[in-house]
Amino acid sequence: ADAGAEAAARDRQMSLTKPPGSLGRLEDLACFMAAWQGDARPRINHAQAVVFAGNHGVCAQGVNPYPQEVTVQMVANFEAGGAAINQLCRASGADLSVVALDLDRPTEDFTQGPAMSAAETLDALRRGAAVVDANAQVLVLGEMGIGNSTVAAALAHAAFGGAAADWVGRGTGSDAAGRARKAEVVARGVAKHAGALGFELLAALGGREQAALCGAVLEARARRIPVLLDGFICTAAVAPLFTLDPALLDHCLIGHVSAEPGHAKLLDAIGKAPILSLGMALGEGSGAALALGILRAALECHNGMATFAEAGVSDA
Amino acid sequence: ADAGAEAAARDRQMSLTKPPGSLGRLEDLACFMAAWQGDARPRINHAQAVVFAGNHGVCAQGVNPYPQEVTVQMVANFEAGGAAINQLCRASGADLSVVALDLDRPTEDFTQGPAMSAAETLDALRRGAAVVDANAQVLVLGEMGIGNSTVAAALAHAAFGGAAADWVGRGTGSDAAGRARKAEVVARGVAKHAGALGFELLAALGGREQAALCGAVLEARARRIPVLLDGFICTAAVAPLFTLDPALLDHCLIGHVSAEPGHAKLLDAIGKAPILSLGMALGEGSGAALALGILRAALECHNGMATFAEAGVSDA
Repeated sequence: ADAGAEAAARDRQMSLTKPPGSLGRLEDLACFMAAWQGDARPRINHAQAVVFAGNHGVCAQGVNPYPQEVTVQMVANFEAGGAAINQLCRASGADLSVVALDLDRPTEDFTQGPAMSAAETLDALRRGAAVVDANAQVLVLGEMGIGNSTVAAALAHAAFGGAAADWVGRGTGSDAAGRARKAEVVARGVAKHAGALGFELLAALGGREQAALCGAVLEARARRIPVLLDGFICTAAVAPLFTLDPALLDHCLIGHVSAEPGHAKLLDAIGKAPILSLGMALGEGSGAALALGILRAALECHNGMATFAEAGVSDA
Repeated sequence: ADAGAEAAARDRQMSLTKPPGSLGRLEDLACFMAAWQGDARPRINHAQAVVFAGNHGVCAQGVNPYPQEVTVQMVANFEAGGAAINQLCRASGADLSVVALDLDRPTEDFTQGPAMSAAETLDALRRGAAVVDANAQVLVLGEMGIGNSTVAAALAHAAFGGAAADWVGRGTGSDAAGRARKAEVVARGVAKHAGALGFELLAALGGREQAALCGAVLEARARRIPVLLDGFICTAAVAPLFTLDPALLDHCLIGHVSAEPGHAKLLDAIGKAPILSLGMALGEGSGAALALGILRAALECHNGMATFAEAGVSDA
């Protein structure tokens, strides 16, 4: 990131017609964008949104009340424009694409062995990286995959410890018995792959959409494109990168804190504050797309407001 | 509000391609709009935003580091398009108007007597009511007035008790000594007008922009137009209505919780949860205008998403 551009953006914020700091997080967001774009007047002319979809072998353990066919059906819904993420991307001005990752070939059940081979993991990482548009000024990331709240809980538990149950929530609609089963499955999977970190962790407990998310995040990092991550699943997906080096996520904002109870705990663990808190738990990138509207508003203020000098307003 | 339209909107939410409840607050916002518009498919084609500005006699007590001329200067900035609220209304698609209320004639100092006469209070109420566009589908309300965080603290303290200092914050930029002075002034004002409620409270401790906000809120209530209130000042401004009947605020949403420490306490007192929490404390309607984007997104999802049946997605 560009410290000079960030400092210039901070100076500009101090000169705008408002009490210093009174736009709160909006000021920080504008300065963050300045740092990553290397421009004291950052812009979002092109926002890219990508939803990665995958299927998971751990569904064999009965962790989800929905059948895995729903992943394919929801991808069709994304492509037809009928899902929440379509409406939210339209509302916030993001170009949405959907990447379905071998949905007819779920990963392996991580309670039995690694979810993916090294080659499969690398392939998904590459596919995630390849989809990033070099001209995007911000990248909104989301996911879809029946069973992937169990995968997320396993990644978070392996990366940050605690008890398996701390990381397990309702997901797409589990009841109390379903949650208990999820926690037990997560505990078994994490015990089986104890000690795995980084790439190995991603392969052992992750899935194709998790690996693709990591690939997209790394590609965006290399291109200095700021990223808006969605909720619990997306944050857990990049936990393996955090275990390698927290700085790999420096260009990432968290769109919202999910109603999934593990998400607040996960955000504490990685030291990031969400932009929104609206009790959402849908995934698809919905919270990140909604937060893009806040990010745009922050830049509208940053670039559009008059300074005290321009407006002839008395500075204190 | 229309319970039938609200129930129909809730049914629609349950049929959309997402786990029930997974859009969290967005679902509630869509149903709230349905109830007030009397339409299961509520729309925002026309959003009106109004900023009321006033000046305050209590500034004679040295409660603000900025001179009162800043109110006039900021009104000119609003009219020239240079303030935060201009950028935020453009970003969220609201038509902004600014109503300057006798800025050359501040209210009286409430530590010496009532801030306004009954006639002045009524006049400001009427001017607030008159500005409401009958065709607006949502009304965004904000304010500007040097000294009005002291007025807000006094109204909140009088309406809801506690200690004066509980309701006093930095405002436009007071230091610790300034806060102590504000708290002392608020305590004296509230003691002087002890027991005042409703209209009398508004006249005793309020100001013209507070009365105009009450007038606009009542007019919107009568026309069933949902209102997005901004932060601490706006919420405190309608506290006199709450003391008469909490239902007078049933059509009001709170755009954000301000960084002013009294605001969270005030929201607890009136039983309303803010939409956003971004550490903002600017006023002008900035938090409400930003929340309009969330409200619009909620309706985009509500009206634009496919149902399970339409999309051929398996319902659990």
